[in-house]
Amino acid sequence: MKEFTEENLADAVIDRMSPQTDPRLHEVMTSLIRHLHSFVREVELNEQEWMQAIEFLTDTGQLCDDSRQEFILLSDTLGVSMLVDAINHRRLRGATENTVLGPFHINGAPVCELGTDISRNIEGGLPAFVSGRVLNEHGAPIAGALLDVWQVRPDRLYDVQDPESPEMQLRAKFRTDADGRYYFHTIVPVSYPIPDDGSVGRMLTALGREPWRPAHMHFIVSANDYSPVTTHLFVRGDPYLESDAVFGVKKSLIVDFKKTTAAEAPDGSSMETDFYSAEFDFVLVEAS
Amino acid sequence: MKEFTEENLADAVIDRMSPQTDPRLHEVMTSLIRHLHSFVREVELNEQEWMQAIEFLTDTGQLCDDSRQEFILLSDTLGVSMLVDAINHRRLRGATENTVLGPFHINGAPVCELGTDISRNIEGGLPAFVSGRVLNEHGAPIAGALLDVWQVRPDRLYDVQDPESPEMQLRAKFRTDADGRYYFHTIVPVSYPIPDDGSVGRMLTALGREPWRPAHMHFIVSANDYSPVTTHLFVRGDPYLESDAVFGVKKSLIVDFKKTTAAEAPDGSSMETDFYSAEFDFVLVEAS
Repeated sequence: MKEFTEENLADAVIDRMSPQTDPRLHEVMTSLIRHLHSFVREVELNEQEWMQAIEFLTDTGQLCDDSRQEFILLSDTLGVSMLVDAINHRRLRGATENTVLGPFHINGAPVCELGTDISRNIEGGLPAFVSGRVLNEHGAPIAGALLDVWQVRPDRLYDVQDPESPEMQLRAKFRTDADGRYYFHTIVPVSYPIPDDGSVGRMLTALGREPWRPAHMHFIVSANDYSPVTTHLFVRGDPYLESDAVFGVKKSLIVDFKKTTAAEAPDGSSMETDFYSAEFDFVLVEAS
Repeated sequence: MKEFTEENLADAVIDRMSPQTDPRLHEVMTSLIRHLHSFVREVELNEQEWMQAIEFLTDTGQLCDDSRQEFILLSDTLGVSMLVDAINHRRLRGATENTVLGPFHINGAPVCELGTDISRNIEGGLPAFVSGRVLNEHGAPIAGALLDVWQVRPDRLYDVQDPESPEMQLRAKFRTDADGRYYFHTIVPVSYPIPDDGSVGRMLTALGREPWRPAHMHFIVSANDYSPVTTHLFVRGDPYLESDAVFGVKKSLIVDFKKTTAAEAPDGSSMETDFYSAEFDFVLVEAS
C-alpha cells in the first residue's frame, strides 16, 4: 500500500481519475489539482485558515439566487473573468476589444427603433445621445448589425436589482441602418459599487480594496458571419477608471461624453435641456 | 493607464491589495491569485467551462446546511483536507499518525464508563470490543487521557445524517485508567459511501471515481501537556483501503478485528455471541 505524503498526494488524486475520463476534463482537473495542492503547500495553510476558506465558499454559494451571483462577483474581483475573456477573445488588430459580460445581462430586451430613449423618462440622470457605426475590419459599414445595450440606473442599481423596477429599464436592442449607423437617447451612465454586503464585499474590505466600477454602458454587438463582441463603453474622466473593481477597463473603450447645448439632437429630435453626446464605432471581424 | 494582458493581470490583482493588508492574508491571497491565474492560463479555460465552474461552486454552496458540508466533502475528495492535515501535523517518529476529522464530528458526546457499549443495542452490526492504551513517546502510560470516539451506523449513516436518530448514537468519550488503558464495546465499523447525491457525487462520477470510504472508527485523543491526535482506526481487509475517496488511509492505522468465540470479553463482561476484538495503543507527544 502506498503511503501519501505532502509531495505525492496531488499525484495520487490525479491518478485516481479513471483513464476513461473525458480527456478535456482530465486535463482541466489535473492542472486544477496540481495548482490547488501547490497553493496549500506554498502557504502552509493552517487548519483555521482552511476552515475560513470553507466558510467563505459556503457563504458565497448561499448568497446566490435568481438576481445575485456572488461567485461571478468573486471571479470578477479576482481578475479571473477578465482573464477568461482575454484568453477567449484574442482578436485581430483593429477589432473592438472585449470586456466582461458582468452579472446583470438578461435576455429578451426589446428591439427598438433607432432614436428611442431607453431611459424611458427615468428620474434623475443627465440626458445623453449615443451614436456611431458598426464596421467590418476594412472600415465598411455593416447594415442590420444588432446592438444589445444595458446600463445602470441613476440610483446605481440595475433594474434586476430592484424588485419594484419596471421591466427592461435602460435595456434595448437596436439594428444598424443601411449605413451601419446606430443611435439612441439615454442618460449618462454613473459609476457604482458592486454589491458589497456579502462575502466578496468582506474580502474587498479585508484587502483594502474599493468596490467601485467606473461608469459604463454594456454592449453585445453581433451580425451574421461576424464574431460578436461583448464590451463596455467607459465615460472618460470617471474617477474609477484606474481602479475598476473587476479590472474591466481598456483604453480603447473610453469615450468622451461631450456636453452639448444645441437645441437639436444629431438625429433631428429636439432637446429641451443640455445633453451629452458620445460617439463610438464598433468593429467586428468575420467569424472564422 | 496600464493595459491588462493575460500575462500581467495576476500581478495587477495582487498589486490592488492595500499595503496595510494583514501580512498573512496578503501572503495567502498572493499565492492563491497566482495559482488561480496560472491554472486558467495553462488550460485556456473557455467561457462555457468557466460558467460550469461557477455553477458547480454555486450548487456546492447551496447544498450546505446544518447537517451537510459539501465544500468539506469537495476538499476531502480533492485531497486538500489530507494535505492540510499533513502540513499541520508533522510528527515525531513513533507518535500516532493523524488523519482527517471528517464532516461528522459533533461536540458534546457524553463521557462514559470504561466498558460501555456505545452501540446502545443498535439493530444490526457485529459486536466488537475495542481496547488499548494511551502512551507517551517513551512508552509510559498516560492516565486520564480523553478519547472522543464516533463511528458510522450499520446502515452506513452517521446519526447526524438521520433526523430520526437518537442523539449520540455510536458516540462517546472515555478516560484512560491509571494504567493508561481504555476499552469499550461497540460494533465493527462498516465501509460507506460519502454523500454522493450532490455536486461532489457528480464530480466523482465524471472522473470515474468511487465514493466509498473503508470501514473506520474516529478518535480524537487528548491529554494535558500533550498534542492531541485526530485519527481513525481502519479495519484490516476492507476492500476500499486502497481507494479511500478522501485519501485518509495510513498503514499504521489499520488494525485487525479478530473473531473471538470466548464467552467472556477481555473486560470480564460475558458475551452471548461471537465478537470481534481490536487492540490499538495511541501514542501522544508532549506539546511544544
